[in-house]
Amino acid sequence: MSSHGSPLARTPEPPYYAVIFSNIRNDAEPDAYAQTAEAMVELAAQQDGYLGVESVRDTEGVGITVSYWRDEAAIKAWKKNADHRAAQAAGQKRWYRAYITRVAKVERTYALGLDDI
Amino acid sequence: MSSHGSPLARTPEPPYYAVIFSNIRNDAEPDAYAQTAEAMVELAAQQDGYLGVESVRDTEGVGITVSYWRDEAAIKAWKKNADHRAAQAAGQKRWYRAYITRVAKVERTYALGLDDI
Repeated sequence: MSSHGSPLARTPEPPYYAVIFSNIRNDAEPDAYAQTAEAMVELAAQQDGYLGVESVRDTEGVGITVSYWRDEAAIKAWKKNADHRAAQAAGQKRWYRAYITRVAKVERTYALGLDDI
Repeated sequence: MSSHGSPLARTPEPPYYAVIFSNIRNDAEPDAYAQTAEAMVELAAQQDGYLGVESVRDTEGVGITVSYWRDEAAIKAWKKNADHRAAQAAGQKRWYRAYITRVAKVERTYALGLDDI
């Protein structure tokens, strides 16, 4: 997880959007990868319409990062960000064995214990 | 990850549904938890409308599991499954510090390298 507070995102009431990024890392450039990943988390958090992020990677290199956005326009604007584009290109060429990104509209939620963490 | 093939789910063309379960484990009953989690993955895979699952947990106990479903009806049927209900109750009382479940409609996807893994 990043160092930005709780590992569970405090999102508003639906509807809003989720970008589910499921991926497998290769073994290349762990430091460069970590630095870029952290920079992208920080940069995303500065974008208009950003609502939060949750990110987990296991010891086998499988990761799921879900970022949350107010609407489609916010996702599209973030997708066009130049630094983000450069990071994505590096990811495609150098850091990921495979990934799938799914854009989804969150319709309802159920939670437990969020006030305690 | 479970032992059920690739860590990335091979889902059909959208639209379909995602259930994003983001959670923090406590330290209780690791064996009982693991056994139930595995049983639920196997049981989910037998349900009508199930499309796949991706699941990652890091070394700090933060997990994200995303299951994919054909439609809302399939999610609702799975939610009513008696064994699933019992597992959820155990999770709420004994295994999770906190969680949030989000039900979302997948609208589009982008992938890289899925044929190679």
